[in-house]
Amino acid sequence: MAEAIKSTGLRGQSAGSTALCTVGKSGSGLTYRGYDIQTLAENARFEEVAYLLLKGRLPTQDELDDYIAGLVRARGLPDPLKRVLEQVPADAHPMDALRTGTSMLGNLETEQRLEDQQWHADRLLAAMPSMLNYWYRYSHYGERIETQTDDVSVGGHFLHLLHGKPASELHARVMNVSLILYAEHEFNASTFTARVCASTLSDLHSCVTGAIGSLRGPLHGGANEAAMAMISQWANPDTAEQGVLERLAAKEKIMGFGHAVYRDADPRNAIIKQWARRLADDLGDTHLYDVSERVDEVMRREKHLFPNADFYHASAYHYMGIPTKLFTPIFVCSRLTGWCAHVFEQRANNRIIRPSADYIGPEQRDWVPIGER
Amino acid sequence: MAEAIKSTGLRGQSAGSTALCTVGKSGSGLTYRGYDIQTLAENARFEEVAYLLLKGRLPTQDELDDYIAGLVRARGLPDPLKRVLEQVPADAHPMDALRTGTSMLGNLETEQRLEDQQWHADRLLAAMPSMLNYWYRYSHYGERIETQTDDVSVGGHFLHLLHGKPASELHARVMNVSLILYAEHEFNASTFTARVCASTLSDLHSCVTGAIGSLRGPLHGGANEAAMAMISQWANPDTAEQGVLERLAAKEKIMGFGHAVYRDADPRNAIIKQWARRLADDLGDTHLYDVSERVDEVMRREKHLFPNADFYHASAYHYMGIPTKLFTPIFVCSRLTGWCAHVFEQRANNRIIRPSADYIGPEQRDWVPIGER
Repeated sequence: MAEAIKSTGLRGQSAGSTALCTVGKSGSGLTYRGYDIQTLAENARFEEVAYLLLKGRLPTQDELDDYIAGLVRARGLPDPLKRVLEQVPADAHPMDALRTGTSMLGNLETEQRLEDQQWHADRLLAAMPSMLNYWYRYSHYGERIETQTDDVSVGGHFLHLLHGKPASELHARVMNVSLILYAEHEFNASTFTARVCASTLSDLHSCVTGAIGSLRGPLHGGANEAAMAMISQWANPDTAEQGVLERLAAKEKIMGFGHAVYRDADPRNAIIKQWARRLADDLGDTHLYDVSERVDEVMRREKHLFPNADFYHASAYHYMGIPTKLFTPIFVCSRLTGWCAHVFEQRANNRIIRPSADYIGPEQRDWVPIGER
Repeated sequence: MAEAIKSTGLRGQSAGSTALCTVGKSGSGLTYRGYDIQTLAENARFEEVAYLLLKGRLPTQDELDDYIAGLVRARGLPDPLKRVLEQVPADAHPMDALRTGTSMLGNLETEQRLEDQQWHADRLLAAMPSMLNYWYRYSHYGERIETQTDDVSVGGHFLHLLHGKPASELHARVMNVSLILYAEHEFNASTFTARVCASTLSDLHSCVTGAIGSLRGPLHGGANEAAMAMISQWANPDTAEQGVLERLAAKEKIMGFGHAVYRDADPRNAIIKQWARRLADDLGDTHLYDVSERVDEVMRREKHLFPNADFYHASAYHYMGIPTKLFTPIFVCSRLTGWCAHVFEQRANNRIIRPSADYIGPEQRDWVPIGER
């Protein structure tokens, strides 16, 4: 038997081409179809970014108005889907609830023809916050909420369903920025899952269901939840500093720092950090922000590590009253746009993704009858 | 913008190592942990092969008896899962029903600890035929079947639930062989989907749910269904010959021939072909077998192509009274063993699977305000 070869996870090997995104390219940290993430976060609506990713270019005002109106209309959930979500218990992993809901929607609105792929992507984009919050409010509070609201934005709709009242302008704005920051990130593991699935010419719901399953893994999504669990245990910046130093001494991981691709900084961090600060000021409670900033300082000083997109997202989401367990599902509501755009791209220039493997098992051997084993 | 690069689908690139399987290695067409597929199909029970794949070696008699007893005990479905399957309509794609059922089971029996992975794999193996047939019999006939039977084999259990009566010895034997033939096939697209998902350290249900979605694609699973649709339209061997020649002249694809990896023959074909013949003789109706054999002859003569595992599976399944739409779901009941074994292997030597991409999109560009587009 050959020896196990250290897994390389296809690092640095190209698995296809994309026009959607650059990550860590010199001179520009993160671009979606050529537009810098900073520019998009400052100027765009999330729906505009979704249009850019899914349809290939920025919309005109009329196109954007139509697109938003279509998303608003598509927020309702079919009754059999509601019945399914009602069967998912309160202690389920919220990502598993979304995975099941998305799969179920595929039974009720099956993608039959390639020409309908844009419609199905838009429908998923509109319905994902509805599915999540319908399940959450039903399983946790026994309420069957109406998911069809007239909020203009996806982020506003999400917060409205979660809290049962329209979001403030500031909160809707921050959700908008957050959804833009998480929308797309090249061939990360969940997106790659979607592309492998798409390469068999399977349907869009299968691709998205698979991607949700991959994003659920602690090495991929969930870093903002882990960051929240960490910072919320510290009473003030000094305790936080002491806690970080203790963790570092014990060689424990500090969540939300460093990145597999970025070397100097995560371009999304500066953006969400400033919004976390504004949320803290608005609330008049800067405790969690101050703790976060101290952790950030200590990590730079001690380890020369920078916070990634997830770190200040933890306090930002917390300030908007979002339960920690829903952080990764919000990631789904955003990254869905990237996943679908990648599925379209894979379909347009497809070959089934079927790599080889290095065999390290036994040589061919003879059968041993069961009595002689 | 760079030009789109022809997709290569990672063909020939190693994405990791495996001790589970060789495909098309010279001197041995297909081996599971070193045992030739012919030997396994002749001597083994499917449950024994599942044990081999999942636990690493052939079981002793006591171990096999215990293993089978455990599988028999684990066939029942929790009530919330039944309620979910009842919401999946009769016209849904059966693979989508399984995808949804598997995802739902993950909500009810979530994998919490790595030590439990074997238990969850066995449970899925036992429950998959139950899920499929519960959904099928309920959606098509309005019957809520009891899925807990005392059939010893997975194949016998499957046929019992489908037909509402215990399977004949011959039919249970053929199902046993069929499940062995489809159990494992190295880094095919569905297995690779499961490994990508596993590489994020996600749970087993996410991995299997994603794999089902990939197997659903017409470039992957479903070839036996397509072969069935083709051969069932021909009244006799002469009509079949004429039909094949017309299709070839029109450059249409003949389903069930050739293979991406095998060059000379698919070692699984000779095995299932002989069993299809025995089923035909047993039934006293060789029509579909004769049609299949003629198509086989014409394809060898005209195109030098050999039938793959799927081709004679079509008539074999048909002779056992299995509806065509359930062919690919049977593939799931079998390949599940390979998927889970690959997930265990990925977890044991893991690095997150995150390839690179060739960027072919626009260079960085300036934002254009919406009024100026």
